[in-house]
Amino acid sequence: MSAPPFDAAHLDRLMDEAGIDVLLATSKHNVQYLLGGHRALFFDYMDAIGVSRYLPAFVYPKGQPDRAAYIGHRIEGHQVQVAPLWPNTVQTKSWGATDSIEKAMAHVHGQGLSSGRIGVEMAFLPAISAETLRAAAPNAMVIDAAPMLDRLRACKSEHELSLLREASERVIDSMLAVLAAHGPGSTKREMAEALRREETDRGMQFEYCLIAAGKSHNRAPSDHRWEKGDVLSLDSGGNYRGYIGDIARMAILGSPDAELEDALAEIETVQRAAFAPVRPGVLGGEIYAGAEAALKKCKFKPIEFVAHGMGLATHEVPHLTSRGPTPYPDDDARRPLEPGMVLSVETTLMHPKRGFIKLEDTVAVTRAGFEVFADRARGWNRGADVAARPAA
Amino acid sequence: MSAPPFDAAHLDRLMDEAGIDVLLATSKHNVQYLLGGHRALFFDYMDAIGVSRYLPAFVYPKGQPDRAAYIGHRIEGHQVQVAPLWPNTVQTKSWGATDSIEKAMAHVHGQGLSSGRIGVEMAFLPAISAETLRAAAPNAMVIDAAPMLDRLRACKSEHELSLLREASERVIDSMLAVLAAHGPGSTKREMAEALRREETDRGMQFEYCLIAAGKSHNRAPSDHRWEKGDVLSLDSGGNYRGYIGDIARMAILGSPDAELEDALAEIETVQRAAFAPVRPGVLGGEIYAGAEAALKKCKFKPIEFVAHGMGLATHEVPHLTSRGPTPYPDDDARRPLEPGMVLSVETTLMHPKRGFIKLEDTVAVTRAGFEVFADRARGWNRGADVAARPAA
Repeated sequence: MSAPPFDAAHLDRLMDEAGIDVLLATSKHNVQYLLGGHRALFFDYMDAIGVSRYLPAFVYPKGQPDRAAYIGHRIEGHQVQVAPLWPNTVQTKSWGATDSIEKAMAHVHGQGLSSGRIGVEMAFLPAISAETLRAAAPNAMVIDAAPMLDRLRACKSEHELSLLREASERVIDSMLAVLAAHGPGSTKREMAEALRREETDRGMQFEYCLIAAGKSHNRAPSDHRWEKGDVLSLDSGGNYRGYIGDIARMAILGSPDAELEDALAEIETVQRAAFAPVRPGVLGGEIYAGAEAALKKCKFKPIEFVAHGMGLATHEVPHLTSRGPTPYPDDDARRPLEPGMVLSVETTLMHPKRGFIKLEDTVAVTRAGFEVFADRARGWNRGADVAARPAA
Repeated sequence: MSAPPFDAAHLDRLMDEAGIDVLLATSKHNVQYLLGGHRALFFDYMDAIGVSRYLPAFVYPKGQPDRAAYIGHRIEGHQVQVAPLWPNTVQTKSWGATDSIEKAMAHVHGQGLSSGRIGVEMAFLPAISAETLRAAAPNAMVIDAAPMLDRLRACKSEHELSLLREASERVIDSMLAVLAAHGPGSTKREMAEALRREETDRGMQFEYCLIAAGKSHNRAPSDHRWEKGDVLSLDSGGNYRGYIGDIARMAILGSPDAELEDALAEIETVQRAAFAPVRPGVLGGEIYAGAEAALKKCKFKPIEFVAHGMGLATHEVPHLTSRGPTPYPDDDARRPLEPGMVLSVETTLMHPKRGFIKLEDTVAVTRAGFEVFADRARGWNRGADVAARPAA
């Protein structure tokens, strides 16, 4: 066995608090985390196979990393040969959502834990797999382990921070490349597709591009054209080796007038006010307090502010608010920030006449305070004078 | 309401046979099919959000398309504005795996069907969503609708066939572009990454690249270098607007000797023997019978043959074999092929000394017989004399 790539003592404590004897993780992102970056290449994009689906299964008995196991699909065997995994037991023989859990539960049974408390990911364990689990372990108590795993991932290692920094930088570089090649008459669809290609060319997995142009607040790609004088909002997620860059920047065709300069300056002020209190030991809620003080002084309306942890998933610990679109308890607002936590900070003005104006940044809590990743291109970026020929 | 984009009478018959009163589809691929191509862009790659996940929900009461509903995530609203969906009820207000099902079941309840037989996708309904469903409809009978949906999708429309044809063509074009730029010293990892970029540049979503070089049968990307005289097997899935191109082709650095020419010719012969019987009305099993007759005459060993339906998923109706890696009943082997069915046909020689030699093709059943998509580049393609500088 190699050493686990995560803090096993921390996982043991969290399992103890959650009353879990054995963890059975089945989401791609948590399995990737627990295996130190492994992800089945064949199923990276798609899960469906026949009438079943790919389902990786990672088993971890509390306090016994030497008895951990990974059950992968039979097509993962070659990958594991190239880059061996840390658990003592690695099987790449499964096919779908049923036999994967049968094999995982056989391992649990072999550890004498099938009558214990099994922590699963209730949103990432298929209903058919839950039935398989119950049949294999009728006396087990099943507990949702997702909140505990979310917390395990909260403080990023230096390596994880470097991937998140790279992800942000590469999203910004991609956006600037798109702006340099698009101008009057370019459609939102063309620009979103160009961003997909730019991110891919930079070694990322493109996730999405929300894009608004002109006065419209609609952020879906469409045949809507970007024209002279129009604002453009680019908001994109790009995945770099499992870690998300999630950045929003603004652009314009021509020059911004005083009102647009003022509007973006106010958004920038709110962002900076949110960053300012960030350091270890400060309560998470101080980020909102900082932003809200700045929001009160804003003359533009309506402005929305939101901040939330991010990393492997678009929303993770720390969860700072129960307001807005994120239905979490705001318990992390009352907990201290810790070094290695990473936050997405977003300020959006839905200007009734000028359009959708937004900045979104990724901020890491450092020992000394904070670091803003890709802290550039924050003003009015310019589109090209002439649009490049659209991609085929 | 617009007309459903699928054959609603066919769905009604299949639901009747399966004893389903109301369908609740929650997989991305089946929801996409039932909505005529809609897919939430924000969640195209990733499902996780916080400790829950994205879960689209499509509701269809048997025989009543006018009472169908789609429950999407709140971020899908802009997409639906740009491209309206056909059901009378479209809500884009959900967040995760629980509230999505609450809203879907409220619609089911409103149709008076919450005590009926509800067809779900057991491998794509999360355990937590199954609990939500049971709480909302304690008297309902839950039935797995996945096999029925698989069958609904079996015969592709002209539009679907055109997407599958494009997908195959673009995968081949991408492979040829990779071969033109890679040669002695190129690693499998560099070539797999280059293929990802080539497919992306052709408007596809890259899915995977299995790649073997030299004598090794290992098909995972790695630092293994392609060198003069080495065979190279490229096997890639690329997704074009939801439809899969899945092709394998061979290449070599230098010129193939007589043994390699013979080996690939035998594989080609098996492929053609499998295609030959394909036409409407012929039993699916004839494909295997054709291939097996050819296999008996092969001098190279071991050769594996497999054929299976494909389209939105890598394995779908017709399921032709219970042998090999596909644990299905081979019932479609005893059913007639129908126009619009699409098959993936694969022949692989694991040559003990020369390496991994494979052809994989996509074949559609036409009214007159069959059509092989991207029927080219089937021989020994050549790599470049000099490798291009690897992509950053």
